[in-house]
Formats: sequence, structure tokens, C-alpha cells
Amino acid sequence: MLDHIPAADLTIDDMRAAHERIKPHIRRTPVLGSDFLNDLTGAQLFFKCENFQEAGAFKVRGASNAVFGLSDDMATKGVCTHSSGNHALSLSYAAGRRGIPCNVVMPRTAPQAKKDAVRRYGGTITECEPSTSSREATFAEVQARTGGEFVHPYNDPRVIAGQATCSAELLEQTDGLDAVIAPIGGGGMVSGTCLTVSNLSPSTAIYAAEPEQADDAYRSFKAGHIIADDAPKTIADGLLVPLKENTWHFVSRNVTDIFTASDDEIIEAMKLTWKYLRVVMEPSSAVPLATILKNPDVFRGKRVGVIITGGNVDLDKLPWLKW
Amino acid sequence: MLDHIPAADLTIDDMRAAHERIKPHIRRTPVLGSDFLNDLTGAQLFFKCENFQEAGAFKVRGASNAVFGLSDDMATKGVCTHSSGNHALSLSYAAGRRGIPCNVVMPRTAPQAKKDAVRRYGGTITECEPSTSSREATFAEVQARTGGEFVHPYNDPRVIAGQATCSAELLEQTDGLDAVIAPIGGGGMVSGTCLTVSNLSPSTAIYAAEPEQADDAYRSFKAGHIIADDAPKTIADGLLVPLKENTWHFVSRNVTDIFTASDDEIIEAMKLTWKYLRVVMEPSSAVPLATILKNPDVFRGKRVGVIITGGNVDLDKLPWLKW
Repeated sequence: MLDHIPAADLTIDDMRAAHERIKPHIRRTPVLGSDFLNDLTGAQLFFKCENFQEAGAFKVRGASNAVFGLSDDMATKGVCTHSSGNHALSLSYAAGRRGIPCNVVMPRTAPQAKKDAVRRYGGTITECEPSTSSREATFAEVQARTGGEFVHPYNDPRVIAGQATCSAELLEQTDGLDAVIAPIGGGGMVSGTCLTVSNLSPSTAIYAAEPEQADDAYRSFKAGHIIADDAPKTIADGLLVPLKENTWHFVSRNVTDIFTASDDEIIEAMKLTWKYLRVVMEPSSAVPLATILKNPDVFRGKRVGVIITGGNVDLDKLPWLKW
Repeated sequence: MLDHIPAADLTIDDMRAAHERIKPHIRRTPVLGSDFLNDLTGAQLFFKCENFQEAGAFKVRGASNAVFGLSDDMATKGVCTHSSGNHALSLSYAAGRRGIPCNVVMPRTAPQAKKDAVRRYGGTITECEPSTSSREATFAEVQARTGGEFVHPYNDPRVIAGQATCSAELLEQTDGLDAVIAPIGGGGMVSGTCLTVSNLSPSTAIYAAEPEQADDAYRSFKAGHIIADDAPKTIADGLLVPLKENTWHFVSRNVTDIFTASDDEIIEAMKLTWKYLRVVMEPSSAVPLATILKNPDVFRGKRVGVIITGGNVDLDKLPWLKW
């Protein structure tokens, strides 16, 4: 950790510049609430619905900031990345809007809905095995072959600055928050939330929510250094990847605590949200509500922003229906 | 039709008074869009998401206007109604907020999610057979027994004035519309839409969308007088009831045309909306998109407001999954 961490140079002005750059390409998503879920949790919950982005996830913010920040010269060879899904389709979407090529490496086990969306936006998929090691090896080949600019799904200051615009909107759309909670996989959304909230609303606590079965961020946070798993398995397919140095920078400094939930608890929270908030969201997006329900004393009586990160789900394979 | 029609006395000021009365009890729901669905239809679609009302449907507007418009004296015996679901739970919700009793007659075949919601809001259910005749006979007994104020699900000027507030918001939230389209069952939402749009945006066409298998409004519109079916069957369970004189007043005067769609087309449109708009909505709410897809020449190049009427659906029984 003695090397320079690029994310350490990010300031709130980078978030503001990102917001101006990406505004033509993203939606200012609404914030929804449910009296039923408020009664159930004892908290007042403000759900920031990033599933309503055209590409179905907050990742379009960071991807658009990277794509539209490229010089015309850098843009000619396009962009490339590896991703379990939403970054892949968001980068394809942003690249498509700029009219440049996009090559993505995705695990063969990624949801079909996400693969379909990548192709619809004009991205090219190379499949890998569902492990960090296979993903990285396959990506090295693709990058060497295409020469595209690598836009990492989260370990990239351009991406973190883009994701940071989400909580800037959330703070504007609510009248003060005691806490914000977001799912954590690689930590891009949480890092962006840290950048914005620690600067614009320093009294607001920042929590991260993680699947028990992919709890490397939780264990890293408790240990004080990055611990990475290879090939974790959880229903929350968007949260399989480990922290990297740029996201660890924010997670280790600005996060108040990390909570975990089991896959059964995640599925229950997902169904509750579909039923009472009436939004289509992914298992990954249900982890915050699952952990709020599990830790009622932390959130009771608080005004809590909850980031619904994405809504790309196979409607023919809903996890509460047994097959 | 020589008798006096109470709805004929409604003015746009009744809508405005209703909006002021119900604002503390309803949500100003967001308007969502999808580039994908725009490309698919060739139109620019503005979806008004009434499924995000706490009770999950636009019906909370009319129900709240009726409940909160009662004098304290009239309110003591509470309210009663018959409904296939969303009016029942919306009236229960409004009555619960005012602290007065609510008795509802529902067909035994109504979705479990809707029955559960009525009970959660404190309403009392009496079940009937799924036919207009059984519903009316059962209701007469309940009303005689309880003495509650009858709030008809749609054939009531108070209810129509309340539903009219939805398109007032939609017009404010969009920058001019060429057309508005809403599902039609008894015609309460369409009548409210007529009241508002014919006064505030007279150049906007008003369309209604109906299931082929419960097409009494379509046949009434073409015949020029009310034709009622007994016991129609369609996946769109919110649209089974016939027009009555107060809604016929508006439908016959202000509606440009009525389109129909088959149950298969409705299910396809429902799944498209869940997938690309990422909202949970009922089959009834998918009828407008189904008819837009079926009549592309009518809507191509137009700015079209589409009212998503409700989102109370059994998540364990999704119609695109075969059992």
C-alpha cells in the first residue's frame, strides 16, 4: 500500500465535473418510499432507484464519465473491460452513444438478460469461467488484441467519480439523511458514495451491505487490509468481485460499518421490495434492505438513503420460485 | 339517458379541489421512460407510475377524495364498496387514514395480494362470486347491514374528480402530449382523464385500452350506448366491470377511440414493461402498451402519456410462467 493510489487525488470537484459530463447520458432517477417498509424497519427509507437508468444500473454513471472523458484520439480504439454484467452493459451503452467499439469479458454464468443487453447496445462479449483468475487471464488476451482503453468496473478514479454523482442527487432529493447504505462488491458505488457524502454531508453515516457468501469486503474491513476470495458463490451476482486499492482507499477511510446477509435473507428482501415498492431489481440491490432488517437497532428512527443499484434480472428465473 | 347524470356537473375546479383535498394522502408519482420501448413503438412514451402509490394504484386518488370529503357526521358509519381489488384496498387505505370503518365486497377470485392488502389497511372483506350480478346482490346486503356511505369504484363524481388529478400531474410533468392512453374497465380513470385533459389540453387525444375478452366499453363506444357483459374472463382482473352512466358521460363525449388487445398480447406487454421499464405492474396496466404495439400507425412519432394504473400482483403467479 506504499504505492500512490490514484483515487486519493479525487476531490468533490471531480464528482461535479463528472456530473456535468454525464448528464446528457444518464437519468436523474427518482427516490421512492414505502410506508409498509418504513413500518417494518422502524426507519424512514429513501430508495434511490438506479434500476431506472436506461441500461438498468448505476454503472452507466461511471462508464459514461470514462467514455466521454476520453480524447478523440484515445477513443478511436474503443474501450474494453471485464464485468459480471452491469458494468459490461453500461460501458457498451456509453460506448454506443459515443459511437466507439466496446469489448467485454463476462463470466459464462452471467445472467442471460445482462448478456443480451450488452449485445443490444453493440458490445462484443468474450466469455470466461466464473472466477477472478479466469476473468483476468481472458481479459489480458482481449485487451492485447483490441488495444482498447481499459475501463475497470470499479478500480478506476474516473469510474468512482461517476458513481459519486448518484449520492449527490440523493442528497439533493432528500431533506438530510442520517445514513446511506449501498451494496458492496468491488466497492465502486460505495467509494463514490464516500467521496460525495464525506464532503457534502459529513455527519451522514456510510454503510455497506454484502452477501455472507461473498464477504471479502466485510473481512477486509475488519482485518484492515484487502482480503480477496476467488470464485465466491451467491445469488447476488453483481457482488462477486474483490476490493482493489482505489476502492479500499475510500472503504477503509470513510465507511462506518459493513453488514452481511445470507442468500435467503437477500431473496426475502428482494421479494419485499418488488411487492411493496413495486420495482424490478436485482438480488444484489436487495442486500441493503436485508441488512437493515437484520440490524434494526442501527437504523431505527433514522432517515436512511438506500441505493437500488440495478434491475437487470431474468424474469423467467425469479429466485423465490423453485424449479 | 334522460335522467340527470351527476358527473355532467363536474368542472375542472372539482378536480382542483380534489387535488388539494387528497395531496396529504397520495404521492405525486414519477413519470418514467424507456428508450428501448420508444424504439419498439416509434412513439415517445411517458409512463405515469400510479403503481407507486402506497396502496399500489391510482384508485387511492378517488377513494381519498370521497373519504376526506365526507362530513364528520356522515363519516361515523364508515364507507362500503364492491371492487375487484384496487378500489377495495384504496378505500380501506383512505378510511384507515381517516380512522373510519370500511366494508368491501370482493370476488372470491380476486388476487390474494389485493385481499391481503385490504385486511392490512383495516378493511373487512365479504366475498362474492366473480359476476356483476353476485357482486351487486352481496353488496346490497352488506350496505343494509353496515349503513356505511357507498363509494362506488367509478360511477361516482367524487371518485371521478379524484382520478382526474392523475392526468393533471402527468400534464405538468411532461412538456405537452399528443395523446394520453389509459386502461378502461368501469371507466373511472378514463373519465377523470377526460375531465382534466379536455379542459387543460384540449388538443391531446384521449384513448382507452381494453382486453378483448372484456370489451364491453369498446362495443358500447361503437354502438353509442352502454353494453354490459356479465362475468367476462381476462388476465386483466382490474378491468372486468362495465361502464355506468357517469363514466359513459365522459367516454361517449371525450374519448377519441378505444383499442383492444388479447390476453397473450397483454402478457407480452406486461413482461416488456417489467423488463425494460423495471416496474412491477398488473396485467391491467399493460393493456395500453399492448394496444400501442398493435396500432403503431396511430402512435408513431407522437408524445404519448401512458397511465400505469396499478402494481398489486401475486409475485408467485406471474402470467408468463406456466404452471
